[in-house]
Amino acid sequence: MADPAPRIRFAMEADVPLLLGFIRDLADYEKLVHLVEADEDRLRRTLFGDIPRAEALIAEMDGRPAGFALFFHSYSTFLAKPGLYLEDLYVSPEYRGQGLGKALLKRLAALAVERDCGRFEWSVLDWNEDAIGFYRALGARPVEGWTVYRVDGAALTALAEGGKDIS
Amino acid sequence: MADPAPRIRFAMEADVPLLLGFIRDLADYEKLVHLVEADEDRLRRTLFGDIPRAEALIAEMDGRPAGFALFFHSYSTFLAKPGLYLEDLYVSPEYRGQGLGKALLKRLAALAVERDCGRFEWSVLDWNEDAIGFYRALGARPVEGWTVYRVDGAALTALAEGGKDIS
Repeated sequence: MADPAPRIRFAMEADVPLLLGFIRDLADYEKLVHLVEADEDRLRRTLFGDIPRAEALIAEMDGRPAGFALFFHSYSTFLAKPGLYLEDLYVSPEYRGQGLGKALLKRLAALAVERDCGRFEWSVLDWNEDAIGFYRALGARPVEGWTVYRVDGAALTALAEGGKDIS
Repeated sequence: MADPAPRIRFAMEADVPLLLGFIRDLADYEKLVHLVEADEDRLRRTLFGDIPRAEALIAEMDGRPAGFALFFHSYSTFLAKPGLYLEDLYVSPEYRGQGLGKALLKRLAALAVERDCGRFEWSVLDWNEDAIGFYRALGARPVEGWTVYRVDGAALTALAEGGKDIS
């Protein structure tokens, strides 16, 4: 009998509870579960509403959900092309070591090429050496010399107050 | 007489030549002009085609184009909200020191709040201390502990080859 092959499909609205479970499991693995504010209603609205802000793939093994990847399109002005940015990649512990993470990354790379993206990118926690080794083996290289700056919470509201009346 | 105030508006298809000029000027300032592959056709297709992959604001002073900001929406699974990601911010040398960069950032922050984004982010070149000081003064903080990994060019094609047949 052949080895079971993963099936990868786009997530649909009915997958919202499944996605929320994966998001919580991933946060737990990353030791960041205290930061999760997502709920089903917000996921439904932002992923499957009038303006979908990201897309997700579900990986199944023997018909059972085994992992997911959530991505959106970035943009490079230098290339004048979109990029594909992988926000989250997660495989449930019981399905690890069967090539599912790699299958998801390959499917996303194929999607990036289909959609004429100039690059495929994601962020990695610096302490996650296993992940870094895995990504390097697939041809990924660190983008060095840049730091992300963020405005959120009260600082975002304060900055926005000054921008409401600029037309 | 009152000081001239900047006017900020969304870029339209007719602004493509202007945007390309700004992109080239910015690349020159960043010492990265050798990396610019953008042309008018690609900008038109990716920003004003069937699926716009990013949006741009134009800042005008006395009716003359003085700078631009190009952004797209990221996504946070932990928040289940989009983010606003500023890819490029540029003000022409002759219009610097008049608050245009700050006006663009404020307008983007207001847009982020209007669109229920959880965060407003951008990347800064580590050598650009002037920019870092300016951003910190506006309430931005570095996101530390993460590194972006990228697959592009031949490595992207190779990874994609393995993903074409996964369904």
